[in-house]
Amino acid sequence: VDEPTHSSISVSLSVPLSIDNQTLPKQIDELSTFSDAPDPAVTRVLYTDKDVLGRRYIKNLMGLAGLSVREDAVGNIFGRWDGYEPDLPAVATGSHIDAIPYSGKYDGVVGVLGAIEAINALRRSGFKPRRSLEIISFTSEEPTRFGIGCLGSRLLAGDVTLAKALKATVDGQNISFLDAARSAGYAQDQDDLSSVFLKKGTYSAFVELHIEQGPILEEEGVAIGIVTAIAAPASIKVDFEGSGGHAGAVLMPKRNDAGLAAAELALAVERHILESGSLDTVGTVGILELHPGAINSIPRKAHLEIDTRDIDEKRRNTVIEKIHQSANTIAKNRRVNLSEFMIVNQDPPALSGKSIIEAMEVASKELNLTHKLMISRAYHDSLFMARISPMGMIFIPCYKGYSHKPEEYASTEDIANGVKVLALTLAKLSLS
Amino acid sequence: VDEPTHSSISVSLSVPLSIDNQTLPKQIDELSTFSDAPDPAVTRVLYTDKDVLGRRYIKNLMGLAGLSVREDAVGNIFGRWDGYEPDLPAVATGSHIDAIPYSGKYDGVVGVLGAIEAINALRRSGFKPRRSLEIISFTSEEPTRFGIGCLGSRLLAGDVTLAKALKATVDGQNISFLDAARSAGYAQDQDDLSSVFLKKGTYSAFVELHIEQGPILEEEGVAIGIVTAIAAPASIKVDFEGSGGHAGAVLMPKRNDAGLAAAELALAVERHILESGSLDTVGTVGILELHPGAINSIPRKAHLEIDTRDIDEKRRNTVIEKIHQSANTIAKNRRVNLSEFMIVNQDPPALSGKSIIEAMEVASKELNLTHKLMISRAYHDSLFMARISPMGMIFIPCYKGYSHKPEEYASTEDIANGVKVLALTLAKLSLS
Ligand SMILES: [Mn+2]
Ligand SMILES: [Mn+2]
Ligand SMILES: [Mn+2]
Ligand SMILES: [Mn+2]
Repeated sequence: VDEPTHSSISVSLSVPLSIDNQTLPKQIDELSTFSDAPDPAVTRVLYTDKDVLGRRYIKNLMGLAGLSVREDAVGNIFGRWDGYEPDLPAVATGSHIDAIPYSGKYDGVVGVLGAIEAINALRRSGFKPRRSLEIISFTSEEPTRFGIGCLGSRLLAGDVTLAKALKATVDGQNISFLDAARSAGYAQDQDDLSSVFLKKGTYSAFVELHIEQGPILEEEGVAIGIVTAIAAPASIKVDFEGSGGHAGAVLMPKRNDAGLAAAELALAVERHILESGSLDTVGTVGILELHPGAINSIPRKAHLEIDTRDIDEKRRNTVIEKIHQSANTIAKNRRVNLSEFMIVNQDPPALSGKSIIEAMEVASKELNLTHKLMISRAYHDSLFMARISPMGMIFIPCYKGYSHKPEEYASTEDIANGVKVLALTLAKLSLS
Repeated sequence: VDEPTHSSISVSLSVPLSIDNQTLPKQIDELSTFSDAPDPAVTRVLYTDKDVLGRRYIKNLMGLAGLSVREDAVGNIFGRWDGYEPDLPAVATGSHIDAIPYSGKYDGVVGVLGAIEAINALRRSGFKPRRSLEIISFTSEEPTRFGIGCLGSRLLAGDVTLAKALKATVDGQNISFLDAARSAGYAQDQDDLSSVFLKKGTYSAFVELHIEQGPILEEEGVAIGIVTAIAAPASIKVDFEGSGGHAGAVLMPKRNDAGLAAAELALAVERHILESGSLDTVGTVGILELHPGAINSIPRKAHLEIDTRDIDEKRRNTVIEKIHQSANTIAKNRRVNLSEFMIVNQDPPALSGKSIIEAMEVASKELNLTHKLMISRAYHDSLFMARISPMGMIFIPCYKGYSHKPEEYASTEDIANGVKVLALTLAKLSLS
């Protein structure tokens, strides 16, 4: 992908950039009310009623910001401000508004509502874009419902395998992806999701604003994180199957308890991560389900979902190999069947575009904001947008690094700083 | 409790006992269709629509058998055949028809439908009871919905603590016990459940027919198990709470993962059971739930339910103490909070009544059926009926000892043998 080379171009504005510190926090709170969990927790799962309400809220704000709005077959939402050279590849920004169960108000949301406010701020300053500016609210950044994270951006980046697989994908309630999409008003008269793919070169740049989801910026008192690389995530689904039986009547030597196999594997995941000796290697068993799940029944099936990430792809893949070996050994020792060990995704890391890093750095300097270069350990839609466009990410501090829980919080000032840097970076990239 | 002393009294019948081998298997299959799981699995949970349909089916069969039917405030169902000395304490039999998720057709059911068939067989043989005979279909033998096993028989036995606790008990959906009972037509105009209590001496004997739920009778080719004691069960609820957080962003040293604490405790339960050195000691983690339960979220809460049983109460209590110590140590080492460690019940074992054992043995001999004395490792309503009446249990073989799963099976012949022994035992106890 070619990168524009003059990204540190200066932007002259008739009025200095200013962020509306009343409206943006209010919008974040309003959006958080579309939730299936009680405030302050947020649960907004793909294609549920609450997700549809959240989408309507975003499209309405995009319209009020003077953007032309379109949606694709899976519900990626685009809001476009035409530049005075509208045929040039546009500059894009955006993030997601879906929220995992019992999470917070800021993950993703800051990068969507913040982008709309960035556009509004640029308009108030008299800015006229050369390249068009486009905001994207991505579908299903979170893997909650169908087990696939960054579903929308993977498709935008032209993931043919995913587009095919989605025709046969079902959720935990056995509802198909396509039926769920249709219930939310998408994929109406088509099963073929290749219409979602974007050509390489559609955008000259993609920039995402996001809370750090880690403690570094807050601890060091730095306003802006400039992401140079995104860690490589992988996710694995594992099923063990034993014989089950009555918890009173089956004596211990006769048992092959699938739940204990799962418990052993969960601890093995932790052990293999720690064996890497690297702080950058992380692994989590976030899902562990027992079947039938009754106090007086020996677990007959156990289902685990494992997430592991690293900035070093090879090191992460070594951990996956060790987890697989442990799963086999545990199954053998406990006489249970390892009926599934599926690597759902195993993505390579992504590097930010050099000229975008430069634009973000210069913007931070011009705004007199402290900043540092850093790695994103969480992954984001940017990881996949990097496949079709130069990419960059702007991080802002969040309280204690908390994310994916109700205590997740970013201050109005920190959000405003991030939105300013985003606005100025977009302006620079638009003119370049 | 006084026991009648002449339980080996001989019974003269005008026609030899015969079991209807067409009707009883058909009834077992019919009852299994009232289920929230697909055939052959059965899910019939307390006070659900399917449970209510199952109850209606039983009451109808009791009526057809000429029994007078009543129900108490929690839905224990009684069907009575008046004896010619109706003021004497009656002889009771019965079991349960609720079924844990994805279990089988025979657990409990054989002891209810089999009791109705035993009454029908006694009538066909021209038997006239001296003491009244009463069949009880107990409410919630299984702990599925409210975490309390043998709820109906505990109350019949006068459990004052439970009667009070149930006023504040809710299920996993936060539906109160009383609301659930009312939705099924019970506890209509009362919160006080002491009306359910039976006086000691209400029954001169209680006998339960049940599948073995273990492999011994089948392996040894013995037709009838005569239970001399029921193992002592205990159940424990445990909650761990950590900080949760994003599975990518929180580095390993900063974590306090409640799910890994739960995994460690599950393995510790197994270890402490095996340390007892006794085959009779068993322990199971049948429930392990993670919150929020998302692949990219570190478990913030983990909930376990532990079942442990032994024929030796002291040895079982030692295991419970060790589990408690492990829970504390794990919580400390992993910097999670052990927010709950609740021993839900910790019951003493029960011995069968001597004269009832004798009646069951003589009945088996008279019917030319092989039999053996054995211990029940699963617990049953009989464990609690033993508090107010001499008690006995009749076991029949079941396929591979399977229970609490869809493969649970008992042959028509084995069931018929059990029903015959039950009928003859009831007849002897009725005349004594
Ligand atoms: Mn997230
Ligand atoms: Mn996010
Ligand atoms: Mn049972
Ligand atoms: Mn039972």
